[in-house]
Amino acid sequence: MSKLHISYNQIHDSIRQSVERFGINENFKPDLMIAIGGGGFIPARILRTFLHKRNNRNIPIQAIGLSLYEEIEIAQSQKEDTPSAPPQVTKTQWLNFGASHSEISLLGRRILIVDEVDDTRQTLAFAVEELLKDIEAEEIRHGMKKGESKTEMGVFVLHNKDKPKKRELPPKIMEHYYAAVEMPDQWLVYPWDALDIFEHTEQADRHE
Amino acid sequence: MSKLHISYNQIHDSIRQSVERFGINENFKPDLMIAIGGGGFIPARILRTFLHKRNNRNIPIQAIGLSLYEEIEIAQSQKEDTPSAPPQVTKTQWLNFGASHSEISLLGRRILIVDEVDDTRQTLAFAVEELLKDIEAEEIRHGMKKGESKTEMGVFVLHNKDKPKKRELPPKIMEHYYAAVEMPDQWLVYPWDALDIFEHTEQADRHE
Repeated sequence: MSKLHISYNQIHDSIRQSVERFGINENFKPDLMIAIGGGGFIPARILRTFLHKRNNRNIPIQAIGLSLYEEIEIAQSQKEDTPSAPPQVTKTQWLNFGASHSEISLLGRRILIVDEVDDTRQTLAFAVEELLKDIEAEEIRHGMKKGESKTEMGVFVLHNKDKPKKRELPPKIMEHYYAAVEMPDQWLVYPWDALDIFEHTEQADRHE
Repeated sequence: MSKLHISYNQIHDSIRQSVERFGINENFKPDLMIAIGGGGFIPARILRTFLHKRNNRNIPIQAIGLSLYEEIEIAQSQKEDTPSAPPQVTKTQWLNFGASHSEISLLGRRILIVDEVDDTRQTLAFAVEELLKDIEAEEIRHGMKKGESKTEMGVFVLHNKDKPKKRELPPKIMEHYYAAVEMPDQWLVYPWDALDIFEHTEQADRHE
């Protein structure tokens, strides 16, 4: 598979352009970002620069950590009755609900989940599913019916790869699905992984 | 105060250089990063590229969120008996201790706290103080004496400004204090805040 190097400046500017192109500030008006670490940290921090402030404050970024372990081929073939077993996703960090010193509420918020790449969509689907569960549980705790809090959720990724997805996101979420760049199924090399950033940038500038 | 623009590539390369210069992999051997968001997210993600893996896995990044509100002048002058009242620091996100789905332990780890800039040192001092409390509480829960877990803590920042600090870090922490760049007290403009990243980069390349 051919590699494609992306520079920091290309990423920064594609985020700027996409906020305008999708009208994210006008149409979705996010008031909370949830960055999936470590890939979502850099896009979320850059994106914050281009999102309108709320009450003269930057849009807060909360972080969650997920590890996706694809079951290896051999393990798959041994479980013949569950050929399409879902991958193991582990939460390595989550939001602090109910923690005495730092409780946040998701109810009524306009949440933008941020990650670097939408590849098989499994990590995103897991994150969305778990956050929807959290929202529902919080609604119940507040004596509300499911959906009564009108909490909205969207997704922002730097790159969406044009390939068959292993999982889908709910249609309601896909109404606010923003990919800064749509691209073929190429091997992306992000600048934060570069050992020599100057060589990397030259390759990116030549669109290699 | 004169402004100094810093480019992404300058930051990326100064992180690479500082890991070598300080011998962070050889001397401190971090096995956990704690990024102070949002400023610490980008440095932590880049730093991960240059830290040695442990058990063939990347060093994990946990995120914490802090808001520092300096008391305003008027408020200060009204409290005459507490002229040097500490600033209000609020935890907006913290580690998930004891959360059923994502418990992490700090005991015995070699923790590197990561932030973008060490200005007055107040945010760093607060983070260190709170983490030390967490470690001690976890030691007690495990029937250990204070310090028995041999947990180590260090600090990594992109820039340390040469100016009087309002708070100090414990000497034990300062043994592992790494600033990628030491600089005079100038107004730093980070690339992630740039509205026009190409103009920003040109200014940074001219050392403006």
